[in-house]
Amino acid sequence: MSSPLRIGLAGLGTVGVAAIRLLDRQAEVLANRTGRKIIVAGVAARDAGKERGVDLSRFKWFADPVELAKSPEIDLFVELIGGAGGAALDSVEAALRAGKSCVTANKALLAAHGMRLAGLAEQKGVALAFEASVAGGIPIVKTLREGLAGNSIERVYGILNGTCNYILSRMETEQLSFAQCLGEAQKLGYAEADPAFDIGGFDTAHKLAILTSLAFGTVIDANAIAIEGIESISLADIEAAAELGYRIKLLGVARRTPDGIEQRVHPTMVPKSSAIAQVMGVTNAVTIDADAVHELTLVGPGAGGAATASAVVADIADIARGVRSPPFGLPVAALALAEHAPMQLHRGGYYIRLSVSDRPGAAAAIATRLAERDISLESIVQRRRPGAAAEPPGAVPVVLITYATYERTIREALDAVVTDGFLAAKPQFIRIERE
Amino acid sequence: MSSPLRIGLAGLGTVGVAAIRLLDRQAEVLANRTGRKIIVAGVAARDAGKERGVDLSRFKWFADPVELAKSPEIDLFVELIGGAGGAALDSVEAALRAGKSCVTANKALLAAHGMRLAGLAEQKGVALAFEASVAGGIPIVKTLREGLAGNSIERVYGILNGTCNYILSRMETEQLSFAQCLGEAQKLGYAEADPAFDIGGFDTAHKLAILTSLAFGTVIDANAIAIEGIESISLADIEAAAELGYRIKLLGVARRTPDGIEQRVHPTMVPKSSAIAQVMGVTNAVTIDADAVHELTLVGPGAGGAATASAVVADIADIARGVRSPPFGLPVAALALAEHAPMQLHRGGYYIRLSVSDRPGAAAAIATRLAERDISLESIVQRRRPGAAAEPPGAVPVVLITYATYERTIREALDAVVTDGFLAAKPQFIRIERE
Repeated sequence: MSSPLRIGLAGLGTVGVAAIRLLDRQAEVLANRTGRKIIVAGVAARDAGKERGVDLSRFKWFADPVELAKSPEIDLFVELIGGAGGAALDSVEAALRAGKSCVTANKALLAAHGMRLAGLAEQKGVALAFEASVAGGIPIVKTLREGLAGNSIERVYGILNGTCNYILSRMETEQLSFAQCLGEAQKLGYAEADPAFDIGGFDTAHKLAILTSLAFGTVIDANAIAIEGIESISLADIEAAAELGYRIKLLGVARRTPDGIEQRVHPTMVPKSSAIAQVMGVTNAVTIDADAVHELTLVGPGAGGAATASAVVADIADIARGVRSPPFGLPVAALALAEHAPMQLHRGGYYIRLSVSDRPGAAAAIATRLAERDISLESIVQRRRPGAAAEPPGAVPVVLITYATYERTIREALDAVVTDGFLAAKPQFIRIERE
Repeated sequence: MSSPLRIGLAGLGTVGVAAIRLLDRQAEVLANRTGRKIIVAGVAARDAGKERGVDLSRFKWFADPVELAKSPEIDLFVELIGGAGGAALDSVEAALRAGKSCVTANKALLAAHGMRLAGLAEQKGVALAFEASVAGGIPIVKTLREGLAGNSIERVYGILNGTCNYILSRMETEQLSFAQCLGEAQKLGYAEADPAFDIGGFDTAHKLAILTSLAFGTVIDANAIAIEGIESISLADIEAAAELGYRIKLLGVARRTPDGIEQRVHPTMVPKSSAIAQVMGVTNAVTIDADAVHELTLVGPGAGGAATASAVVADIADIARGVRSPPFGLPVAALALAEHAPMQLHRGGYYIRLSVSDRPGAAAAIATRLAERDISLESIVQRRRPGAAAEPPGAVPVVLITYATYERTIREALDAVVTDGFLAAKPQFIRIERE
């Protein structure tokens, strides 16, 4: 058996504590699997005195994570501090510069600095592993980087934020408003006190940026992601979707198009019969469309201490076994600077919900505005349903599903409809994603 | 860049040809991913003259796969011949003995000789990789061996045979008989002319034997698997299952129990709302229950040339990058000789379908036989449905769902019911598997 692998672990929140528990519980099997003992040689956290439910007195404490990262007493640095910069960035950078492999669960850090850190790891011949940064316990990073190594990937998309999926699932199953479900999620600890990062789609975007790079062999380009959150989704949308055979999910989607790589995060209508539509509650799911494997879907826990720690420990085990793959599958110099496909050129079906003033000529005017732009309709529903979400006085709800058209075209058509003055409220539109 | 990796590929059926196509198409990206060129240096197949739709004249041909396996012109041997022994075994063994890594898609070979071959690979310090042997394009071997390295696994189960899932799916959606759907599957090339290996559950059992070893760190014990095929499933069962909120799938299930490791392959009732129940047609799916990750499900293509080749090429890429993990996750000497939990001690819910003679006392007698053995019933349905599958003359269909009980108990109770003489046909029972 080789010499032990000595770990320095910074950040003792839920995931850090769960990782220590897992390393304790699985010590023997991990030693057998990797051929060496894995030892926690040092920890760093803000509050050394805090009760965390696990014996931490046996570890050497470092007040400064950067000191831990550079310490000659560790071989591998595990960063579970969080945040795109600050101590997380400083300590990972220090560890890599000191020639130590790093494991991180930090999607914000990778979305902002992933390329530079990967380059540094490569230069030093060490590993930078981040399975836990995307979709918690689902081994999606390994699957894209290694499991599908022979595939050319066309699209990767998924439910990457459990908070949003919990809220949308509850709205549908319990017929509750967005605000009610958000409040519930906060009470259950699924949503932060300031939920903007989750429900605004930004968390999903960070994860999507990482998946895009792994899937397409491209330089991370988080700024190229079109982002919309789920705040605008009303019960009326959920009900109309259900009636038309769809379900609404917040998806992160990255797709190869003739115009480049398209990256987008937005509420999405998916056919109720699709695999992704079955994923309810805080569960995450990722689907990959690729030339050889066709379609592969992974479903599992996207968050939670133990599940995320499972991914952290798998990365540690790989590094203990000596695996030193390029962090994003390819050497940084071989990652392409992909063309960014602008959202205006997005092509797909659309769901449109309008509050139409109940006066003559309204329907004809709307139909004309769509027809002028060659937008074909798959279905139109215009009726008041008993118990349906209230419309403004004197307005009738009209729901349209279009065949594939361009984002630009839909926006132009809706602008024209608004200008015509027949709408009693701002029009709603949601993109449709098909399997 | 390191020296090229020279491959010898034996067996040029659908998967072999697809692998060559994939290696051609992805040559550049594979070289970038692995740091070396991957070259097909030799091939072996029974008929050198056969048209296979890809240019094979550029490769050196070997009449004997064993000669190819031993050839100093190759570094890595890819076995796609098939069969538990014969040329497949001889050539893999020869390659390992010659110190060459091997990739195989051969579940029968591994179920029979996996331990010995893994020991040989370990002794020679080379890789033996077999992602393609279970669930085609789904990276389930990598997920169990590496992705969940820090987990203690409680259960692994799945739909591992596309032919059976196609037949069961068609029976339900089209209301066709087993024989009709089998005929269709044969016409479409999903089932062999002699379908016994697939529909009898033996193919699933081979795959389950491999998954069990990976999941529980145990020595492969294919003989310990209780196997039942889908031949006995009638439209009456499918209809009754649907009515009660279940769907019937052929599952392979391996589970840690207080009595040891339980391994079984049989038609199974799964709740319609479960992830596994959504998997229709030739698609495969595997679910893993583990302590840290809780529940993880992978869904994808279980067969087909390109999907299986995707797994073969991923293994080749790992080996090209220098990965040399123990084939079953642990060194062979560390694999446990697990206690085999006998089927008689299996505990779970049961679906029972009886053709009961329509005479006084029948229902009471059956209820007594079950009650005597403390079998509690979740539901009882006794009625003739219009258009339902025909019962023997003078018989009434009775469908029972039990709460958890033992296999032995159910069998004893049904034996007693048969002895009472109230049944017009052999009783049917199907095990229920819950999420």
